[in-house]
Amino acid sequence: MKWAMVSTWKMSRDGQLKAAELLEKGASADEAAIIAAEVIESNPAYTSVGYGGLPDNRGRVTLDAGFMNGDTLKFGAVGCVEGFKSPIRIARKLAENEFNNFLVGRGAEEYALKNGFEQWNNLTEESYARYLKEKDNTGKLKSYDGHDTVCYVVRDVNGTVCTAVTTSGLFMKEHGRIGDSPLAGCGYYADSQFGGAGCTGVGEDIIRGTVAYKAVSKLSDGKSAQQAADETLAEIMTRIPDCRSVSFVLLDKDGNFGVGTNCDFPFVYGSDEDGIRLYLAEYRDGKTAIRLIEDDECELD
Amino acid sequence: MKWAMVSTWKMSRDGQLKAAELLEKGASADEAAIIAAEVIESNPAYTSVGYGGLPDNRGRVTLDAGFMNGDTLKFGAVGCVEGFKSPIRIARKLAENEFNNFLVGRGAEEYALKNGFEQWNNLTEESYARYLKEKDNTGKLKSYDGHDTVCYVVRDVNGTVCTAVTTSGLFMKEHGRIGDSPLAGCGYYADSQFGGAGCTGVGEDIIRGTVAYKAVSKLSDGKSAQQAADETLAEIMTRIPDCRSVSFVLLDKDGNFGVGTNCDFPFVYGSDEDGIRLYLAEYRDGKTAIRLIEDDECELD
Repeated sequence: MKWAMVSTWKMSRDGQLKAAELLEKGASADEAAIIAAEVIESNPAYTSVGYGGLPDNRGRVTLDAGFMNGDTLKFGAVGCVEGFKSPIRIARKLAENEFNNFLVGRGAEEYALKNGFEQWNNLTEESYARYLKEKDNTGKLKSYDGHDTVCYVVRDVNGTVCTAVTTSGLFMKEHGRIGDSPLAGCGYYADSQFGGAGCTGVGEDIIRGTVAYKAVSKLSDGKSAQQAADETLAEIMTRIPDCRSVSFVLLDKDGNFGVGTNCDFPFVYGSDEDGIRLYLAEYRDGKTAIRLIEDDECELD
Repeated sequence: MKWAMVSTWKMSRDGQLKAAELLEKGASADEAAIIAAEVIESNPAYTSVGYGGLPDNRGRVTLDAGFMNGDTLKFGAVGCVEGFKSPIRIARKLAENEFNNFLVGRGAEEYALKNGFEQWNNLTEESYARYLKEKDNTGKLKSYDGHDTVCYVVRDVNGTVCTAVTTSGLFMKEHGRIGDSPLAGCGYYADSQFGGAGCTGVGEDIIRGTVAYKAVSKLSDGKSAQQAADETLAEIMTRIPDCRSVSFVLLDKDGNFGVGTNCDFPFVYGSDEDGIRLYLAEYRDGKTAIRLIEDDECELD
């Protein structure tokens, strides 16, 4: 096949539709992955990423993003960045640096400002209302639903694999909390010689398992993408029996996908051969079962 | 053997001396690793860690630390934290959390304050003078020497492996820059079933290679610690030919060490059988050569 991509959650389809147009015209995996992620960031209907994202325990929308180029293994990332329109664009820019590829907090914001990135208030009325409701409902922070990180793993016509990840992180997280999403090796990894991976779920558990690198490394000894995903999931469930939700998408160097999850996990796979299609991965009898689904079979974004 | 530990740079011996006393009395790897790291943090003579650490490009000492328990794979970490005496103690405390195990910047500092950690000005006259000299000398930031992260990998009498890492990060780093040191999988990893690893060098390159997890994962298929280290280094040098300095220490589940480096790298290995001894690892003909040395053979801390 010419190009292929796999991404987390149903909402990621919007980004794939845009990225597919570009890939079809010969765009790089780098460009396609960034544009796909940006489409989701800018849509306030998607409440776990970018504009309209989930607030932290102070009612502030602080964002994490990471990018990796599988040809060079260079990466860029931001963590806990507030007040900018597209964190994935800042991460992409940081990947060009010789040093200082991962910036957090105030330092990341000052870098973004200095480099001309658009400032933006990501706290919508809806996201603030969600914060107030959670705060008043419980008195203490018990909700950690909605950790729906969007990851794209893209292979272009030249065989380059890139990953882009963007998220607002755990709902009601402690201010300053960093999850797996900006961490290369944990939330994402790309090596064009083998493939790439991206993760979503409880970041703390994904970090414990170094999940993205673990999955990509299993592609190196001749396994299919789904075999690599199954082995990765089995290892995690055995070694981290107390792990909460963990899901990941994997793309091998030829553009085939594999997926692992311990919950119900919609994802999207697209290629020039197959078009762009929605799948549901489910955890059944200790393994990931995957099937094509229709839109109305999936309530989760 | 009963207990063993391996750690980065000559200065780490001070911490091993203290940790050995405790391990001999049956202390846990957790306690021993933290106390060892704290010994180095509190000594202003060691200029790349804790009190008297290297400033960022604003003349501020911002610190990174990470801790992992190889029984549970639970970790805790702080990044870009300023104004506290012992970042490794904050990281250790965060490892007890259900979520929010990695905090950065202001959020990490507020957490530390709320949890009663001692405030401390880590900018000594000497570290500020070093900053001013570099700033005035060059006009632009060219120096990235002195990235001498201290890592301890400790195995206790019960077979538990823990890692503790602490650093001020790259000298003259951008404000908000996070290196590999607080990142589980990159700067450190521990799994008591196999062993543990800790890294020092240019954090950005260590992250690209997911070095600590890579090294530990190679222990899982019957390789010796040094074989695992050699293979890890070979993979990095082949796949990341533009990598700058990368060094790492590895301890297998039985307490044997392995080391990989692409520069001159002093390290310390201690056990109840061997005592605590200083070694030099050197990069020769594409491989790591290791020998016992005397104090006066080593100018590097």
